[in-house]
Formats: sequence, structure tokens, C-alpha cells
Amino acid sequence: MNKSIQILKTEAKILQANEFYADKVRDMLSKSNTYCVNLISSPGSGKTTLLVNTLHQISDAIACAVIEGDQQTSNDARRISKTGVPVIQVNTLQSCHLNADQILTCLNELPLHDIDLLIIENVGNLVCPASVDLGENEKIVLLSITEGEDKPEKYPLAFSEANAMLLTKIDLLPHLKFDIAQCEKSARSVNGNIEIIQTSSFESNGLDKWIQWLKNRIRAK
Amino acid sequence: MNKSIQILKTEAKILQANEFYADKVRDMLSKSNTYCVNLISSPGSGKTTLLVNTLHQISDAIACAVIEGDQQTSNDARRISKTGVPVIQVNTLQSCHLNADQILTCLNELPLHDIDLLIIENVGNLVCPASVDLGENEKIVLLSITEGEDKPEKYPLAFSEANAMLLTKIDLLPHLKFDIAQCEKSARSVNGNIEIIQTSSFESNGLDKWIQWLKNRIRAK
Repeated sequence: MNKSIQILKTEAKILQANEFYADKVRDMLSKSNTYCVNLISSPGSGKTTLLVNTLHQISDAIACAVIEGDQQTSNDARRISKTGVPVIQVNTLQSCHLNADQILTCLNELPLHDIDLLIIENVGNLVCPASVDLGENEKIVLLSITEGEDKPEKYPLAFSEANAMLLTKIDLLPHLKFDIAQCEKSARSVNGNIEIIQTSSFESNGLDKWIQWLKNRIRAK
Repeated sequence: MNKSIQILKTEAKILQANEFYADKVRDMLSKSNTYCVNLISSPGSGKTTLLVNTLHQISDAIACAVIEGDQQTSNDARRISKTGVPVIQVNTLQSCHLNADQILTCLNELPLHDIDLLIIENVGNLVCPASVDLGENEKIVLLSITEGEDKPEKYPLAFSEANAMLLTKIDLLPHLKFDIAQCEKSARSVNGNIEIIQTSSFESNGLDKWIQWLKNRIRAK
């Protein structure tokens, strides 16, 4: 086990108390001037890969930290730690999403006043994390083009709560029946203001656009 | 809207009561000699496509019915209804999984004594549906090879509860970094008895194996 990775194993406290902890998280982030995004998607949509690629590009200029949520394993934290960015792995055990009290516990373990950008990678679940306030500045939803065009309408909350949708694995387009215009229409039908950015772990264009969007959001906070 | 599709919109009753309804479902299925499987996976792993292909192959010989679970839309029920098999769409709204009381409501709408095989397609969510007893005979988990090898260890409950794992979208293997042996090892580390079947919507070999496995289970009940 890499010593730079901390692992927090905790059953989430009950949801009714979540808003209390989310407000505390918001307050701490505000005082330390740390911008916080919460990445939400199905398992395997490419959150960790996007995160690793993003950190490689920005962590020299922007002080980052990462909180990884998974029911079990520290696989993702191990991948993140190779970028040199501080990371805390939260194992949620039976819980299907991160809760704000877990984020608060993590904040107390991080040098928050030295961190400009905190990225939370939520548990792989397109449904439940969307309804849970972690005190973040914004939610970002990822949708892999292998998942089908109609997911925004079938599971609308993640797409209505998010300010941006990253459409991932665009490089697989030649091998799939996937209609990008139809998917974008589906997303915009539940959130007319959503920013849509196409990305691929094998092409840099989309990554550059995503990073620029993220930098603009940090600047505008 | 196709008149053969029924849509049930309901907020799920509280989980504590679930076991009461699951027992009632089990009792009804037993009395009508109907075999029931509950398909669980992330959104977009290919449950509906597998189901359509399966129904085309077996519904002449085996009387089938389908219950479709999604938070919103009747897209999947529309696809199923084209096979001629009776289907009920349950829109779970805020709920992230089907509950047994919803299945019970559906059973009262179906000619159960004429149905040999009832297939439930749960809400697209690899996490939450795994912990909910619907009164089914068995759970089947689907994992698309686009989702990564380590998902069984990261989200173990679905894989420990299921009797079979269908590894879907095998045709995409040449375009991905995916190690099948590693994924099978991950699945077997959480469930030593799990049957693993590779499938693709573009190749018939895996589908035949899955259908034979399913027929054997129905016969052995």
C-alpha cells in the first residue's frame, strides 16, 4: 500500500443530517478559497482516467487534491497518487454514494488553505449521488458513449443537477451505434443550460476544452 | 404510445416493508410455476438489448413476460413490446431500484399462470438493486467490458448476490484495454461459484450459451 494514500472506511451517517455537514463543508471551502467539483457517473464511464489526465495537465499550475469514493478497494486512489496529487480514498461499504460528513472528515485531513481545486470522484452510480449535496461548488456528470443516447431522460436528476456533461470515450464512436446529436438533445431536454464537452482519453482536443472550462469556473468563483 | 405497454408510476414504499412483499411475490410465482430472474447492471450495459435478443430466440417455446424498471421514460418497454412479449414499465421516479411491492402490483396485472419465465430488468444501477429482494428466483448481473475489469471488487454485492455474470459487448474487445481473465478473477474473488458467460449483441455464440444456461435453470427449478 502506497503510504501517500489515506483510506477512510466509514458507514455514512444518516441522510437527514447530510445538509448540516454539507453546510460545514461549504463554509470550510469558502474560507480556504478552494473550488470543489463533484464528478458523478455510472461505474466505468471514465471518471478516474479523465481525472488522471486532467491532473497531469493542471497540477503544476493549480494546487489540487482528490477525494475518491468507492464501496471497496483503493484502486482509484492508487492511480491518482501516481500523479503526485494528495488523495484520500473513502470506502463507503454498503452506501451507494458519498455523504457530506465523509467529505468533512476528509477536509480535516487535507492542507485546505494550500489547495485551489478539490475534485471529488463519487461512487460509480448515475442515480443516487445526484441527490446528495456534498457542499461542492458544482456537480459534473460523465456519460460514456457506450451507455446509450437516452440516459439523460431515463435518469434525469444527475443531468439536471450538473452544470456540465462530459461525453466520454468519443474515440469508440466508429464502433458503436450512437447518435451524439440525439444524446445532446436528451441532455438539453432535462437541462437547457448544460455545457456539453466531448472527451476521449486518447485525444487531447476534448481534454483541453474541459480544462479551459474548469479554469474559467475557478476564476469566476 | 403502444397500447400493449402498461406504465406504472409509483414512489416505492419504504424498504422495511420490502421483505413482506417479496415473500408474497415468491408465493405467487411458486403457485403459478413461473421462473423469475432479476437483471442488474449499470446503465447502458446492454440489458435491454440482451433481453430483446433473448426473447426473439425463446418466446415461441417459452411463455415470457417482462417488467421494465427505469426512473423515467418507457423507452425500454417500447423496445420489448416489439417482440410481442407482454411488458409492464415501472417508472420508479426518485427511487434508484425496483422494490418488491412494485413487482407485486405488476404480477396482479399479468396472466401469471400462463407465464413460464418472468424477466425483471431493474433500474440501471450496479449498486442499490443488489441489496433488494424482489422475490425472484435469481439475480443475474451484467458487466460491459467498457466498464473496466475491477468493478466486481469495487461494487461486490451485485456479484456476490448473482448466480451468473454476463460479460457484454465482447465485440468491442479489439478497441479497448480490457483483460477478460483479470475481470473473471475479480468476479470469482467475490463469488467463487458465479457462472460467467461472454456475450455480444453482434455474435450468437454467447447468446446461445446464455439461453442454454437459462433453460437449464428453468428446468431444474
